[in-house]
Amino acid sequence: MSEEMIAAKEAMLYSQRIAQLSKALWKAVEKDWQAWIKPYRLNINEHHVLLIANNLKGASISDIAKFGVMHVSTAFNFSKNLEERGLLSFSKRDNDKRNTYVELTEKGHELLLELYGNFNHSRHTVIDGSIPLRELYGEFPQFFELIALIRNIYGDDFMEIFEVSLKKMED
Amino acid sequence: MSEEMIAAKEAMLYSQRIAQLSKALWKAVEKDWQAWIKPYRLNINEHHVLLIANNLKGASISDIAKFGVMHVSTAFNFSKNLEERGLLSFSKRDNDKRNTYVELTEKGHELLLELYGNFNHSRHTVIDGSIPLRELYGEFPQFFELIALIRNIYGDDFMEIFEVSLKKMED
Repeated sequence: MSEEMIAAKEAMLYSQRIAQLSKALWKAVEKDWQAWIKPYRLNINEHHVLLIANNLKGASISDIAKFGVMHVSTAFNFSKNLEERGLLSFSKRDNDKRNTYVELTEKGHELLLELYGNFNHSRHTVIDGSIPLRELYGEFPQFFELIALIRNIYGDDFMEIFEVSLKKMED
Repeated sequence: MSEEMIAAKEAMLYSQRIAQLSKALWKAVEKDWQAWIKPYRLNINEHHVLLIANNLKGASISDIAKFGVMHVSTAFNFSKNLEERGLLSFSKRDNDKRNTYVELTEKGHELLLELYGNFNHSRHTVIDGSIPLRELYGEFPQFFELIALIRNIYGDDFMEIFEVSLKKMED
């Protein structure tokens, strides 16, 4: 095989490997996430919108789409549902009439707190599956390679918001 | 905060971290995968079924579901579509009348080969995003922590099939 063919084969195998790992991981994450939020009549995208609105004070719909990795129309539709339930409020800005901004209402904030309080009451296969690594490392795994990859795909500002959000949740 | 509360908080933060990373990764993988197979009128699950049928000679529908991380009904429905297109054949076994087994047809096999041949003609954001790591390490990243986690969640046989499949694809 030529150098070029070897490189193409290597890339394809790598791509298949990460595709399968990623699918398996996401399906486990998705199940855990759904189990956690199910009693609150939320789907994953709706919960994600609430989290982003809470973390990015005064987020626009396009911020929600970007940081929630969803289409703008998806971000808008789910935000609309949440607004109708009184969990989010919509606003325009004087200096920016084109974009819609969302903010968590008091009721939305209370719902998020309640969700955190109930975190331990659902099954968490991903946490359980990470315990052996935690025992080995003394802390949960960091997935640095994965973070580097996500940074390369989505850009520095995506990762910055990601880190700020987690920091905020911690506080 | 008590020890227990600190542990609960740590677990929740970790869970949020991995949920967001996993969603971002899967969305990128999904887009690349869809772009690759789009010209062949396949969706991701259908392509995944073909790959598993090719890798596990004589796979049952429940094998497809397990290794494809999909519901049994999803695995069955997509397999049925593929059978109708002449890409898979169904069979029963004399010693096991309850399970349905699937096998790639000649046409299915040709389609897979054609797909591999066309791999380079679509956009691959995940590969592109991995190039800086490849330059740093001299090879694509291995994601050992992720593999350990998937192994803990899905079991040893899942990972064994995963490795065998990639090995087979390599040959």
